[in-house]
Amino acid sequence: MLRDPSTKYRPFPQIDLPDRQWPSRTITRPPRWLSTDLRDGNQALIDPMDAEKKTRLFDLLVKVGLKEIEVGFPSAGATEFDFISGLVRGEHVPEDVTIQVLTQSRRDLIEKSFESLRGSPQAIVHLYNAVSPAWRKIVFGMTRDEVRGIAIEGAKILRDCAAAQPDTAWTFEYSPETFSTAELDFSVEVCAAVMDVLRPTPDKPIIFNLPATVECATPNIYADQIEWFARSIPNRDSVVISLHTHNDRGTGVAAAELGLMAGADRVEGCLLGNGERTGNCDLVTVALNMYTQGVDPALDFSDIDGIVNTINYCTNIPVHPRTPYAGDLVFTAFSGSHQDAIKKGFAAQEAKNDPLWEVPYLPIDPADLGRSYEAVIRVNSQSGKGGVAWVIEQDKGLKLPKRLQADFSRHVQAMADETSRELNAADIWGRFEATYLPTGLDRFALIDYQESHAPGGPPRIFTGKVRLDGEERSISGRGNGLISSVLDALHEDCGVVLEVVDYNEHAIGHGADAQAAAYVECRTGEGRTVFGVGLDTDIATASVRAMLSAANRA
Amino acid sequence: MLRDPSTKYRPFPQIDLPDRQWPSRTITRPPRWLSTDLRDGNQALIDPMDAEKKTRLFDLLVKVGLKEIEVGFPSAGATEFDFISGLVRGEHVPEDVTIQVLTQSRRDLIEKSFESLRGSPQAIVHLYNAVSPAWRKIVFGMTRDEVRGIAIEGAKILRDCAAAQPDTAWTFEYSPETFSTAELDFSVEVCAAVMDVLRPTPDKPIIFNLPATVECATPNIYADQIEWFARSIPNRDSVVISLHTHNDRGTGVAAAELGLMAGADRVEGCLLGNGERTGNCDLVTVALNMYTQGVDPALDFSDIDGIVNTINYCTNIPVHPRTPYAGDLVFTAFSGSHQDAIKKGFAAQEAKNDPLWEVPYLPIDPADLGRSYEAVIRVNSQSGKGGVAWVIEQDKGLKLPKRLQADFSRHVQAMADETSRELNAADIWGRFEATYLPTGLDRFALIDYQESHAPGGPPRIFTGKVRLDGEERSISGRGNGLISSVLDALHEDCGVVLEVVDYNEHAIGHGADAQAAAYVECRTGEGRTVFGVGLDTDIATASVRAMLSAANRA
Repeated sequence: MLRDPSTKYRPFPQIDLPDRQWPSRTITRPPRWLSTDLRDGNQALIDPMDAEKKTRLFDLLVKVGLKEIEVGFPSAGATEFDFISGLVRGEHVPEDVTIQVLTQSRRDLIEKSFESLRGSPQAIVHLYNAVSPAWRKIVFGMTRDEVRGIAIEGAKILRDCAAAQPDTAWTFEYSPETFSTAELDFSVEVCAAVMDVLRPTPDKPIIFNLPATVECATPNIYADQIEWFARSIPNRDSVVISLHTHNDRGTGVAAAELGLMAGADRVEGCLLGNGERTGNCDLVTVALNMYTQGVDPALDFSDIDGIVNTINYCTNIPVHPRTPYAGDLVFTAFSGSHQDAIKKGFAAQEAKNDPLWEVPYLPIDPADLGRSYEAVIRVNSQSGKGGVAWVIEQDKGLKLPKRLQADFSRHVQAMADETSRELNAADIWGRFEATYLPTGLDRFALIDYQESHAPGGPPRIFTGKVRLDGEERSISGRGNGLISSVLDALHEDCGVVLEVVDYNEHAIGHGADAQAAAYVECRTGEGRTVFGVGLDTDIATASVRAMLSAANRA
Repeated sequence: MLRDPSTKYRPFPQIDLPDRQWPSRTITRPPRWLSTDLRDGNQALIDPMDAEKKTRLFDLLVKVGLKEIEVGFPSAGATEFDFISGLVRGEHVPEDVTIQVLTQSRRDLIEKSFESLRGSPQAIVHLYNAVSPAWRKIVFGMTRDEVRGIAIEGAKILRDCAAAQPDTAWTFEYSPETFSTAELDFSVEVCAAVMDVLRPTPDKPIIFNLPATVECATPNIYADQIEWFARSIPNRDSVVISLHTHNDRGTGVAAAELGLMAGADRVEGCLLGNGERTGNCDLVTVALNMYTQGVDPALDFSDIDGIVNTINYCTNIPVHPRTPYAGDLVFTAFSGSHQDAIKKGFAAQEAKNDPLWEVPYLPIDPADLGRSYEAVIRVNSQSGKGGVAWVIEQDKGLKLPKRLQADFSRHVQAMADETSRELNAADIWGRFEATYLPTGLDRFALIDYQESHAPGGPPRIFTGKVRLDGEERSISGRGNGLISSVLDALHEDCGVVLEVVDYNEHAIGHGADAQAAAYVECRTGEGRTVFGVGLDTDIATASVRAMLSAANRA
C-alpha cells in the first residue's frame, strides 16, 4: 500500500447543490422494485444458473412480490434467448409481472431482444451505453457527441422495433451507464436526447436508470447526483428515476436509501446483494429497512430462511452469517447482559396492550421473517453454539457431520441444564463417549468380525462375533458391501431394522498411526433417526463399530 | 410478515437540524481508530478466542497500525483478566499503542479493570451505561436522573482509581450506550455531568463514544445526531467524539463516514466488520474508502489476504466473497465486456505518464492490497472457477476434497487450453476418469483382495491380487489397519513409498445401493503430493482402490 495515496487516487468532487433537500426527507412509501437477479446477479456467479435454477429463482421473485424482473440479455447467446422466450411462450409470467431485458445499442442485438419477447403482453426493453469520461476515453475512444449518438441511434431502433410488435405494451428503460462517474450535465443531455426520440408521457413514462456502476464516493454524493438529475431532467413527470447501486465501498444500501430521499421512484438490485464484484444493491435489506420504519415495502419476506435456501441453491454463493435480517447470527445473542435485556423486552412486549415493537437489540420481530430469537448458552468460555463440535474437533480430531452435531447438542444442552455450571471439554467428551461410543451397558458390543467374499465381487459375507445383551453371539449377513452385509446381519439375526441415510468417514492424524472415525446416520424401522460413531485404526472396523453404535441407539 | 407494519413499527423521528453542515463536507484526514475486535468482536463469536488466538489477533492489529486497541472486559472473568494483565506484564504492547478496557459502572468492576492494567504506561478506561428511554423503561426501570446518577457515580470511581495508580497516563472514555435511540439533550446532559467529574482539558480530553448500539435509522440521521451533539456539548475542544456504529440496516460503514463528515474524531469498529448480530463498523472498508480518495488512512492493508487469513483463523467467521476490498470475488470479472474494458484500462494505465489510477471496474489497484485482478474464463456455460467440482458433484455425486479440486482443476485448465472450445460436463467427467479412475494403461489394477487379522486386533494382513505392469501379481503387507497394510504391501512388494496425508470417504446415494467414494492424498518418497480416488459398493474396497489410484500417480 502506498503511504501517500494522494498521488494515485483523488477525492471524488463535491456536487454543487447547497440547497439540497434530501437530508430533510424520509422514505414514506415503497419504490417500484426491479430485480436483476437473473441478469447482473447471474452474470457474476462462479457457476451461472442453468434453466432449472433460473426458473426456480424467477418463481421465488414472483412469490416475493416483485412486479418487474430483468430476466436476461437475450442477444448474449442461445441459452439466454431460449430461457427468455420460453418464459414468454410457456406463459410462465403472471399477468401482473413485467419482464425486462437488457441490450446494448446495436441493431442486431436490439432486434434479437425484441424477438425474444414476441407474444408477451407487456415488457420493458432496457438499453444502455456508458457515458463517463473514463469510459469514453479508455474503452471507446469517443467524443461526447459520438456517445450521445449511440444512445440516440439505439432509441430509434427501440422505437421502430416496438412499432413492429404492436401487440405488446412496451416500456423503455435507458441507462446512462457509469452515471455516477459521469458529468451530470452530460447525463441529462443524453437522456433528454433519448426522450426526444421516444417521446414519453406521464401515462407512458420512460425509465431512466442511473447506475453507480462502480461505487466511487460516499452515499450522500450519489443522493446529490440523483437530486441534481431529478431537478434538471426535462418533463420530470414523464420520467421514472431508477437507482442502480453497487457496493464497492460497502454503502450500496445507503446510497439507494439516500437516493430515494433525493426523489427516485424505483430501485434495481438483487436479493441478498448478489452481483458483480461486491454485489448489487441488496433489495432484501432496503425493503426490510422500510418495513422496520412502518412502511409496507410491498415485498414479502415472511419466509426469509426459505429465500436464503433458494438463493443459496441457485447462486452457490453463501449468505454471510452477519447479513442484515437474513444471516444466521442476526437474531443470536451471546452476551449475558444482552440476553437479559432481550428477555425483559419480550416480557414487556407481552404485558403491554400496544403492538409497537420495542425489544432491546432486536430492531425487527424475528417472527415477522419466520425466524426466532436464539440465546446462546455458552458451554464453556471457549465455546458456544457450534462450540461443542469445536471442542470435540480440537481435542479429539473428530469432525462431526452437521446433523450429528445437532443430535449431540441436545445431549449437551440436557447436561448443561442438569449441572447448572459451565461445562468443560472433558464433560463434553465424556458425554460424547457415553452417548455414541461403546460402554459396558450397550446392547451390542463388537468382539471381532471377518468379512469374506467370492473373488471378484458381491455378495459379501459378514460374520461377526458380538456381545448381545451380555451373551456372546455369532451373527452373519450378506450384501453388496460391508455395510449392507452388517445391516443384513443385524436384521436377520438380531431383529434390528436399520437403513443407512448418510455415511462419512475421515482420518484422524496421518501416517501409520492414523485412526479412522466413521459416522452413520440411520433410519429405524419405525422411522426414527439414530446416529452411530465408530473409531478404529482400521477404516472397515470403524464402520462396523459405527453400525453397532447406531444399533445400540435404535 | 405483517402487510401493514405501521401498526407494529414506527418511523425514526427526524432530527431538527435544518442548517446541517455535514452534507457539504468531505473526509480529508483519517480519524483516530479504535479496534474493538478483541471486545465487541470476540463477544459475538460462536467460538470465542482463546489466549493464543487473542494474542495473534492483537499482533495483527498492531501490524496493521492500530494505535488504540480495546482488549477486553477485565471484570468479566479470569480468562479476560489474565489475558489483559498478561499483555501489560509481558510488555507485549508497543510503546506507541494504547490499550483500552471496557467496564460497567460498578465499583468492584471498575477496580478490577484498573487492577488488570497495573504497570501499563498508558491506558484508556471505557465506562458505559445505557441511556435510551427503551432501556430505562424496559431493562432498568429507572428515571433519567437515576441513569445520569449511574454515570456520575462511575466517573467518580474512575477518577479515584486513576489517582491511586498515578504511574499510568490515563485517558477516560465514556459511552452513553444506546445513544442513537436516546434523546439527544439527555445524552448531552449525561456527558456534561461526566465532564464535571473528570474535568478534561484540550491537552487531556475525554473520549465520548456515541454508539448506534442497534442501527435504527438511515445513516444521515446518525450524522445529524453527531453534528447535533458536537454543536451542543460544552468544552468541545476537550472532547474527542468517537463513532461506534453497528450494521443492522446494512449501513454501518455509511453511518461512520457521514458521522466523520459531521465532525467526529474517532471511529470504533472491527476488521472486516465482525461484531454482535450484523457486526460492528468494518474498519477495513472505512479506511480503504478513504485511501481510494487519496487520504492516507494511516492503516496498512497491503497484505489483505494475510489479514483475511488471520481473521478467519481467529474468529472462525468466514469473509464473504463479496466483502469490499477483501472478498474473493472483488477483483474478479466474469463478463467479457468488463474484461475487455479492464484490459484497455491496464494498457492505458501503463502507457500514460500520470500515476492517477483509472481502470474501469476497479476502484482500487488490487496490487495496493497485495492482490491481483482475475479474469475468469468460463469452462462452460454452467461452470467456472469452482464449476468443475460442481459439475462432478451434480452429475456423479462425488464431493471432492478442496485440495483434490485444486489438483484436478489444473488438468481441466490444460484441457481447456488444448481444445479452445467450451467444455461440457461429459468432457470434465471424462478427464476425471482418465486421471484418477482405473484405465487399461495404469501400472496397478486391483483384481481382488482379502484382509485377515488375528482375532482381537492388529496387525492386519492385506493380501491383494493385482495386475502390475500387465502381470498378475500377489502382494501382501501388514499394519494396524487396512490402509497401513496396503501401504506396507506397496512398499515391500512393489517399491512404492507412500504416506497418507489425508483420507476422506463418503456415501453416494443411500440404502443398499449406495456407493462409497474414497479419496486419499499421499506424499511420495520424493515429497510429491499425489491423489487417489476409489469407487466401490464396499467402503473398504473403495479405499484400496483409492490407494492403488494414488500409487498409479506416484
